[in-house]
Amino acid sequence: MTEISTLGEFALIKRLTEKITIRNGSTIRGTGDDAAVLRYADKETLVTTDLLLEGIHFDLTYVPMKHLGYKSAVVNFSDVYAMNGQPRQITVSLGVSKRLSVEALEDFYEGLRLACEIYGVDIVGGDTSASLTGLCISITCIGEAEKGRIVYRDAASNTDLICVSGDLGAAYMGLQLLEREKTVFRGEKDFEPDFAGKEYLLERQLKPEARRDIIKSLHESDILPTSMIDISDGLSSELLHICHASGVGCRIYEDRLPIDYQTAFMAEQFNMSLTTAALNGGEDYELLFTVPVALHDRIEAQGGVKIIGFICEASSGAGLIARDGTEIPLVAQGWTSLTES
Amino acid sequence: MTEISTLGEFALIKRLTEKITIRNGSTIRGTGDDAAVLRYADKETLVTTDLLLEGIHFDLTYVPMKHLGYKSAVVNFSDVYAMNGQPRQITVSLGVSKRLSVEALEDFYEGLRLACEIYGVDIVGGDTSASLTGLCISITCIGEAEKGRIVYRDAASNTDLICVSGDLGAAYMGLQLLEREKTVFRGEKDFEPDFAGKEYLLERQLKPEARRDIIKSLHESDILPTSMIDISDGLSSELLHICHASGVGCRIYEDRLPIDYQTAFMAEQFNMSLTTAALNGGEDYELLFTVPVALHDRIEAQGGVKIIGFICEASSGAGLIARDGTEIPLVAQGWTSLTES
Repeated sequence: MTEISTLGEFALIKRLTEKITIRNGSTIRGTGDDAAVLRYADKETLVTTDLLLEGIHFDLTYVPMKHLGYKSAVVNFSDVYAMNGQPRQITVSLGVSKRLSVEALEDFYEGLRLACEIYGVDIVGGDTSASLTGLCISITCIGEAEKGRIVYRDAASNTDLICVSGDLGAAYMGLQLLEREKTVFRGEKDFEPDFAGKEYLLERQLKPEARRDIIKSLHESDILPTSMIDISDGLSSELLHICHASGVGCRIYEDRLPIDYQTAFMAEQFNMSLTTAALNGGEDYELLFTVPVALHDRIEAQGGVKIIGFICEASSGAGLIARDGTEIPLVAQGWTSLTES
Repeated sequence: MTEISTLGEFALIKRLTEKITIRNGSTIRGTGDDAAVLRYADKETLVTTDLLLEGIHFDLTYVPMKHLGYKSAVVNFSDVYAMNGQPRQITVSLGVSKRLSVEALEDFYEGLRLACEIYGVDIVGGDTSASLTGLCISITCIGEAEKGRIVYRDAASNTDLICVSGDLGAAYMGLQLLEREKTVFRGEKDFEPDFAGKEYLLERQLKPEARRDIIKSLHESDILPTSMIDISDGLSSELLHICHASGVGCRIYEDRLPIDYQTAFMAEQFNMSLTTAALNGGEDYELLFTVPVALHDRIEAQGGVKIIGFICEASSGAGLIARDGTEIPLVAQGWTSLTES
């Protein structure tokens, strides 16, 4: 018997999926990217799915149900944008324990509906069932993209620039903050947590947004990335996905990592490495993408996007160039929920 | 605070979904049927999803993982066939507890792949995560259908014939059998259950098939049902869905209910009502559909399909005509997993 923890995510998924064959002409791309690509006519159909489990992905002691609904939808939209597509429909399956009230589920749906309204998405189905244990949320998102405009993670080339939207590590710091307040809260009955000045970190953790705006502005600037992925498991992990899928290496610069001042302040307070938070924090839902070096000036002129490094040959490996000029190999530490628990 | 158990499934779903609005032209039909209908060009895209939770939908003490994988896929295909469509792709999300071995998950995927091979479906994505508790399975199936050939549940008309494929109640009897053997098994160490002569019941419970053959033969006979649904929660419940959605009533005849002799034999042994098993057993995955009365002879000539009653006006209600000629109102008792636990 092989325990799952001895394999890790990638090896496990490989073992589970390597015998899968594709047999329909309408299946353009199956497993292995942010979304599956299907072709039903003159548009491509994108499908992506996420499973969120209580105690693993969220903690109901400090996550409001409305925010949970919003976030559950948005993380799926993010996967569709990361293919350069537009989310169009979601299905929602819930396993609910007796402990939850109808009002709590309504709050959850209110968050879902709000996200769908903002992003122009329809809820088109689902399944609701009892759960003997915690809350279980499974969302599938279907989207569309123009033929020839889908951006995969496997086409980054040597000398391409590596770009990232927004800033990194804030959602992770928000989580640390919530976890700390939860611990303090346990001891006091009328405890009121003080989150003043930390609103951004909480928002990034509890109510993340998908970068539709970046997809739109890249399109308007006529920039088609060579590869793209959304940052859900941390920059390191996602960049290694691109490198591995594209058969290339990379260098990123520590002093180019985009970090908000609140993130930096909290890292200081918690005595944590800011770079580690930015590299491995996860749940940023920013876009990580590569563009040909010829587009350098156009990207520089682009709002909300920062060049953090470049793609190199696979033989050079994947590395971070630290502030002092030393080179540190990038390692994927993002995804741990399967091996940790 | 309203407890979920006080509402029941339909009221709960209504409360959760009534504020949902549809805003894309590509969404032809959203919540409320076996599958959502999307239009991306000259074919309709069907999407359906199912969530299966350990302890609620399956018991790993007697369900082999390979069978569980097979069944998880097939129950989704069944929903697509019930719209007169063809399943094409599935996504698979799993929440797995530490207790499960890699081999067990491989067995699960083997079952999935087998089902996909037989039904010509591609696995195109998913999500695998840890679960603090039991196994959690979420499958979404995407399918296609010819424009104008989709069969909904809301278009049954007065005088239509009510038809059902295969036979009913066997999967429920298979479950009773497995539950009984499990109880006996608890007392003895080297207990070997004797299932001789009951293979059909076990197969119906553990390895159900979706009725692709019926969809094919109806098509070949140029029969387009006016309404259709697959029987997952019991004949009564599904027939009431059709009646409610179509604004009609119905009469079915007890002596026309198709029942296998093994089912009848086990009902006798268990001292259970055979009719109750056929009406409310669930998990039959047969097709329930209506056709215009003008097609009576063509349906009679159809293999594997039986006429069990007729559609009447809504004011006449929904009833079963018993063997002795008395009339018993139909009630939905199928779906209980949310209120029971």
